[in-house]
Amino acid sequence: MTDNEKLAIREYESKKGLKELLLQQYSKKIEDLGLEDFSRVKRYLKVYYGVLDFHFDRDMVFAHLGFENISSYLAKGQDFTVVSGLNPSSPLHFGHKVLFDLLSYLQTLGAFVYIPITSDESYIDSKVSSIADSRRIGYGEIIPSILALGLKRERTRFYVLSDYPDIYNFAMYLSKYVDMGYLKSIFGEDSLDNSGKIFYRAAVQLAQILMPQLPEFGGKRDTLIPVGIDQHPYLLLSRDIAKKTGFIPPSEMVFKFQPSLKNPLEKMSGSKPETAIYLTDDADTIKTKITKAYTGSVSLLSVHRDLGAIPEICPVFSLLNFHCADNTLVKKTYEDYKSGKLTGGELKALVTDFIVSVVCEHKKKRAQVGDYKDMLVSTPIRSFL
Amino acid sequence: MTDNEKLAIREYESKKGLKELLLQQYSKKIEDLGLEDFSRVKRYLKVYYGVLDFHFDRDMVFAHLGFENISSYLAKGQDFTVVSGLNPSSPLHFGHKVLFDLLSYLQTLGAFVYIPITSDESYIDSKVSSIADSRRIGYGEIIPSILALGLKRERTRFYVLSDYPDIYNFAMYLSKYVDMGYLKSIFGEDSLDNSGKIFYRAAVQLAQILMPQLPEFGGKRDTLIPVGIDQHPYLLLSRDIAKKTGFIPPSEMVFKFQPSLKNPLEKMSGSKPETAIYLTDDADTIKTKITKAYTGSVSLLSVHRDLGAIPEICPVFSLLNFHCADNTLVKKTYEDYKSGKLTGGELKALVTDFIVSVVCEHKKKRAQVGDYKDMLVSTPIRSFL
Repeated sequence: MTDNEKLAIREYESKKGLKELLLQQYSKKIEDLGLEDFSRVKRYLKVYYGVLDFHFDRDMVFAHLGFENISSYLAKGQDFTVVSGLNPSSPLHFGHKVLFDLLSYLQTLGAFVYIPITSDESYIDSKVSSIADSRRIGYGEIIPSILALGLKRERTRFYVLSDYPDIYNFAMYLSKYVDMGYLKSIFGEDSLDNSGKIFYRAAVQLAQILMPQLPEFGGKRDTLIPVGIDQHPYLLLSRDIAKKTGFIPPSEMVFKFQPSLKNPLEKMSGSKPETAIYLTDDADTIKTKITKAYTGSVSLLSVHRDLGAIPEICPVFSLLNFHCADNTLVKKTYEDYKSGKLTGGELKALVTDFIVSVVCEHKKKRAQVGDYKDMLVSTPIRSFL
Repeated sequence: MTDNEKLAIREYESKKGLKELLLQQYSKKIEDLGLEDFSRVKRYLKVYYGVLDFHFDRDMVFAHLGFENISSYLAKGQDFTVVSGLNPSSPLHFGHKVLFDLLSYLQTLGAFVYIPITSDESYIDSKVSSIADSRRIGYGEIIPSILALGLKRERTRFYVLSDYPDIYNFAMYLSKYVDMGYLKSIFGEDSLDNSGKIFYRAAVQLAQILMPQLPEFGGKRDTLIPVGIDQHPYLLLSRDIAKKTGFIPPSEMVFKFQPSLKNPLEKMSGSKPETAIYLTDDADTIKTKITKAYTGSVSLLSVHRDLGAIPEICPVFSLLNFHCADNTLVKKTYEDYKSGKLTGGELKALVTDFIVSVVCEHKKKRAQVGDYKDMLVSTPIRSFL
């Protein structure tokens, strides 16, 4: 065995270890955070609907809290309410797309979706240089892209936080119930270094989550909040404050991260362009980013042919897995890549073509998105005044 | 000397000690807090205007920070801007009246006065049970009383915080600049036990103070904030944040407290009815409250006749001193009380008559206050969005 071969085998073993680590992380988080495994819900949905959306089928949603409350709406064929906010600091990337594809699917099951565009959060967390910048990104990039992703006009409502200050009134109302000791225990004192961060995390975010339960928006009821695992603390806090203020604690649905192109343990991030593919990237940029991406395969072809790759940790494969509805193609690619039949380079070429076609299609649809003023929330919030 | 006489003499000495303590407190605060004595400004105003308002003349304003910036407006006969907020948790009392009398006087010198009615603060600090309650007090009690006190329609603007949520947008903008470490050092961690208190003290209050400097309200300029000494930390914070955000640090004018009827070292407080006379109290209530009040005289008549009283620590005398424009009457009362010629009981009767007549007059004027919608701020705040 050559030194290169030995090195490549060690590389394979290390990638295999990474896969175990990732799997353990998810199950450990379910246990540590007191979440429920989503597989039971999945079985229920499969029985009920026969076919599942590929996001559910491929376990992109892995945990939940209180989803059974939403199941009863599904069982009765009733509408249910979903809230899913977005930090407008960059154009949408494929990590966001997973979420909106999921929301789009949930709309076919009866979801009415509120999407707060948190211009204030982007500003407070210094992800943009001014509220004006984040507003511009919100209206010019985010909302048109979301609509192009297929969210239904009659089942979606947006608001840009800084243009809907009534929400701050509600936040002020809720803020009285948020004990600082509890807050520090959830978020850590270091992440609360200015008064805006505290008010945002401990009041404004809660107001967004509980807003649909105000009489102005239909009154108290079960709601569903899809989150990444890092947002779980907000959900815990909002459930606590909901109980204290007589609202119904929202249910939570936890989805997996679209991994960074550079590191399967991190998530794709809008503020780190090398980790993300934006829905507005051009073909050359996409090709370059994918070419430079981390993969699940070892660097020596002979060893790859022999041992195969680890698709589970491959950010390039995950682009296909998270976004391609064609089960046959995804399954074949998975197996060929895993067996070593498909090389890392071939996978990259295949995924680049796929992603370029998705982005190309998205741009076409985005160009057709018209005026969306009728989808902006403007109801005055007065009920607790 | 009888035991009773000895006791009364000791009582007199103790009241005299209290007077020293009070005087020292004011001069110590000027020194400790880096304030300027107001006497120089007073001399300047006296030269300039010939006659001073009795509030200035009787040293009810004792310290300032940056008042010289306002003096230049006075010298040129130009308008200047004043901000003075109010916590709407009870009807106005005579402690509030001092402030609004002062504001009314400042209006004759050119002041344009913004009066934020902080319904949110009352709620956050649990002084009312709901924002709805504080709103009701704000519109139903506070604003009509302020107008009856003589504030000029064309030089006064009000807003009830919860009805003008645009201010929260501005607060959000400012909050990013408020470092939590600094905040804790000013207010102490214990007073910041929920997220609303933090956001209110470290952002909303600043937004009220700096709002007139937004382009919507005339742009950057010197402003004057009259405060009680306990509000000085807010002023320091607002000056700091003004510098950081390119606004002009506001000037401060510090007035003395109207003392509690029960304790000359404490202030009259709306949430402790026995300490305060409300502008809505009836004659019997006023009589009872004044009868039960602490005074500057000793309990034994013979010793009072002999040694006299300490008007400076007498909450009953202060009602006259703070509210009666008749210099001759106030001076005579002071001297007669001090010399022992006027007894505590006689002082109480005299002050009761005076206060009842003030309240009676106030009620008449209040009944004539008409619609004030044109005085409510409704300008959208958009300039930093």
